Amino acid sequence: MPHDYLTQLIQKNDTKIVLLVIDGVGGTPFTPGGPTALEAAQTPTLDKLAAEGCLGQTIPIRRGITPGSGPAHLALFGYEPLEFAVGRGALSAAGVGLPVKAGDVAARGNLCTLDADGNVTDRRAGRISHADAAPIVEILNSVQIPGVEVEVRQVKEYRFVVTMRGEGLSPELADTDPQATGVPPLLPVKAADPKAERTAQLYQQWIEKAFEALANQPRANGFNLRGFATDPGFPSYEEAYQLRAACVAVYPMYKGVSRLVGMDVIEFDGTHPDEEFAVVKDLWEDYDFFFTHIKKTDSYGEDGNFEGKVKVIEEVDAAIPDLMALEPDVLIVTGDHSTPAAMKSHSWHEVPLLLWARKNIRPDLETEFGDRVCARGGLGTIPATDIMPLALAHTGRLKKYGA
Amino acid sequence: MPHDYLTQLIQKNDTKIVLLVIDGVGGTPFTPGGPTALEAAQTPTLDKLAAEGCLGQTIPIRRGITPGSGPAHLALFGYEPLEFAVGRGALSAAGVGLPVKAGDVAARGNLCTLDADGNVTDRRAGRISHADAAPIVEILNSVQIPGVEVEVRQVKEYRFVVTMRGEGLSPELADTDPQATGVPPLLPVKAADPKAERTAQLYQQWIEKAFEALANQPRANGFNLRGFATDPGFPSYEEAYQLRAACVAVYPMYKGVSRLVGMDVIEFDGTHPDEEFAVVKDLWEDYDFFFTHIKKTDSYGEDGNFEGKVKVIEEVDAAIPDLMALEPDVLIVTGDHSTPAAMKSHSWHEVPLLLWARKNIRPDLETEFGDRVCARGGLGTIPATDIMPLALAHTGRLKKYGA
Repeated sequence: MPHDYLTQLIQKNDTKIVLLVIDGVGGTPFTPGGPTALEAAQTPTLDKLAAEGCLGQTIPIRRGITPGSGPAHLALFGYEPLEFAVGRGALSAAGVGLPVKAGDVAARGNLCTLDADGNVTDRRAGRISHADAAPIVEILNSVQIPGVEVEVRQVKEYRFVVTMRGEGLSPELADTDPQATGVPPLLPVKAADPKAERTAQLYQQWIEKAFEALANQPRANGFNLRGFATDPGFPSYEEAYQLRAACVAVYPMYKGVSRLVGMDVIEFDGTHPDEEFAVVKDLWEDYDFFFTHIKKTDSYGEDGNFEGKVKVIEEVDAAIPDLMALEPDVLIVTGDHSTPAAMKSHSWHEVPLLLWARKNIRPDLETEFGDRVCARGGLGTIPATDIMPLALAHTGRLKKYGA
Repeated sequence: MPHDYLTQLIQKNDTKIVLLVIDGVGGTPFTPGGPTALEAAQTPTLDKLAAEGCLGQTIPIRRGITPGSGPAHLALFGYEPLEFAVGRGALSAAGVGLPVKAGDVAARGNLCTLDADGNVTDRRAGRISHADAAPIVEILNSVQIPGVEVEVRQVKEYRFVVTMRGEGLSPELADTDPQATGVPPLLPVKAADPKAERTAQLYQQWIEKAFEALANQPRANGFNLRGFATDPGFPSYEEAYQLRAACVAVYPMYKGVSRLVGMDVIEFDGTHPDEEFAVVKDLWEDYDFFFTHIKKTDSYGEDGNFEGKVKVIEEVDAAIPDLMALEPDVLIVTGDHSTPAAMKSHSWHEVPLLLWARKNIRPDLETEFGDRVCARGGLGTIPATDIMPLALAHTGRLKKYGA
C-alpha cells in the first residue's frame, strides 16, 4: 500500500477532493532576474485561493532528480515512486486501455524508416501522421505466432504498444532499442533472467515475422521496441484510500497511470481547462476524488515557449471558478514536476503547491501563487507523496493515530 | 535505539536541556481571517526568545496524521513513533506507576453502568467521582484467579488499569471493547495469535469473577477493557542519550510515556506553570534533561475554549523567566501536536517549534513565536524526532560524524 500507516486510519465520508495538475507548472526565470511563468501569469483566482489556503513546494522523487511523467504522477497519487516502479510498456498499454494482466508482457514501439540494408534512417518514420500510421499498426496487430496471443494498438502517430499473452511469460528482457540511426532498429531480444528465455524467443519470432509484414511499406518499414513490462499490480485508490476516483485527462500517458491505480478514466471531447472542468461537473455526484490534468503548460515549457506557458496558466486560472462552483472540500493545485521554458525540458526544481480546504485549514502568511512564494509557504517543502495524506486529513477522512 | 546514528556520537558534559511541551499549542484561526491562539496571546518572553533563537515547525508522526498523545510524546523524545509502538494498557499502567514487566499483560478499563440484562447504559458510570470510584476499583483489585497475579489500579475517576503477571502470557488479544451502549460491555476475550490462547482464557476467567464482585454496585456494576499490551522495552534516555532525565508533569499519560523511556517521574503538588517550573528549579542539580508539560492548552483546545487557551499560553509566557533564571543551555518550546479550539480535537497541523540555545545558535529572521511565523523559521519543517538531536548538538553533546 502507499503509506502503510494510513490504511488503518481511513474512514469514508461524502467529501469531495479535486487534484488539479498543471503539468510542468514550475519553472525558472526565463530571462536573468525575471519572473517564472507562474509568477508572470496574471492569476487573480489562484492568488485568492493562495491567500485562503496554504502553500508549499513538493519534491516529486528526490531532490535533484528530474522525473518522468509516470513516476511524477505516481508520487502525486501517493505511491512512493522508487518503490512503485512501472515499465513503460505497461504504462503505455494502460494509456490506450489495452489490457495487460499479470503475466502478460507489453512493450512500447515506434514505427521507423529503414534503408535497403535494414538500418534506421528515421526513428519516427518521418513523423508519419496518425491516420497514415493506423493501417500499418493494424498490419502489426494481424501478425500472430503459435502459443501466445499478440495484440498491437496505436498510441499516437508513429507510437504503438504491443502486448503478448500466454503461459509462463516474463518481462525480464534486456532493452532492445539501440536509440540510434545508421544501425538496425532492434538488438536481438535477450533474456535478462533465465526465466525469460522463452519470452525472448517468442518476441524475437514475432519481431521477425512483423518485419516481413512491413517490408513493402514506403516509410514505416520497421520499428523499435522498449520498456518490456507486465502489470505492476498496484493497490487501487479504492483499496488504498477508500476513494472512488475519476481521471479527467486528455493524453494517454496520464490516463494510463490513472488506470494503474484503479481510477475510472473518463473519455470526453475537448482539451481546454473549461472543457475538462465541465466534465468534472458532470461526474460530481459519482466520485469522491477527481484528478484533472492540464497538459499544455508542459508542452510549451518543452518548446521553450515562455509566453505560451504563461497564457495557459492564465487560461486555467480563468476556468477555476467553474471548479470552485462545485464546492469541493479540498482543492489541490500543483504540477507533477517543473518544466522551465528556459531549459526546454522537465527539471528537478521544486514544484509549487497550493492546498485549499473548505474547513480546518491553517492559512499561511502568503497571498499569491508563485514558485518563490511557495518556498515560504506554511506546508514547507514536502515529498509529493504527502499530498494525498494532507487531502485526506483536510476532508476528515483520517482517524487519530494512537492513544 | 532512537536515531541509531547518534549512539556512537554521544558525549557527556554538564549542560542542561529543558523541553517545555505546551500540549496542543498549535492551532488554526478560531474565526476566519483571525489569529491562532498562539498568535493572539501576548507573549513578550517567548517573542524575545524567538528573536534570539531559531523557529521551525514539526510533523509529529507523518503529514496529515492526527497523533494521540502517546506517539506524539515518543516522537518529541526522539523515538520514531511508527517503530516504537506502545499499547494503551502499558502506557496507562506506566502512568500510574503500576509495574508492567516484559511478559505481563496490562489493559485499560472504564467502569460503566449495566442494566438488568447486562447491557451498557452509561460507558462512564455516570462520570462517577474519583473518590466514589476508588473503593470499587479496590474490589476489582481483590479479585484473583489461580495461576497468575492480577493487580488493578485507579487512573482517574472511572478509569483504571489492570495487569496480569505470570508465566507464558501474551498480549496478542483481540480488542474487547464494543465502544457502544445497549450491548454487553465486553466481547469475549479472544486470542489474536495462538500463543495467546491461555492468556485469553485467564482474562475471561478474571472478568467473569470481577463482574460477579461488582453485581450489587448501584452505578459502577460493570466495566470494559481495551488496549492489551506488555512492556514495550524501549531503550532509556540514559542508554540512548546518556542523559539523566526528569519528568515534571501533572497528568498520568505524560508520566507514563516518560517512565517508558526511563525518565524519573517527579511527584509534586500544583498544576500551574510557575509551580511546575519551581519543581524544575528544585531538581536542577540532579538531572541533565527536564521534560515539563503544560496540559491545559490542550484541554481548552478540546473544549473549544479559544480564550482559555490564549490565557494559559500567556500564563506560561509569564512563568518562563523562572526557567531562564536557571540558565539552561538549551530551551525547547513546542507542542506534542496541534489542538485547534475551532476543531475541539487534536489535529494534524504542523506544530510551532522554538529552539533557544545559550551558545552556537544561528538565529533566523523571525522575531515572534506564532504558528505561521514558525513556518518561515530557520529550522524549516522537521520531524518531531529531530528535536532531540538538535538539543544534543546545541549543548555540545554530539561528536563529529566521520573524519
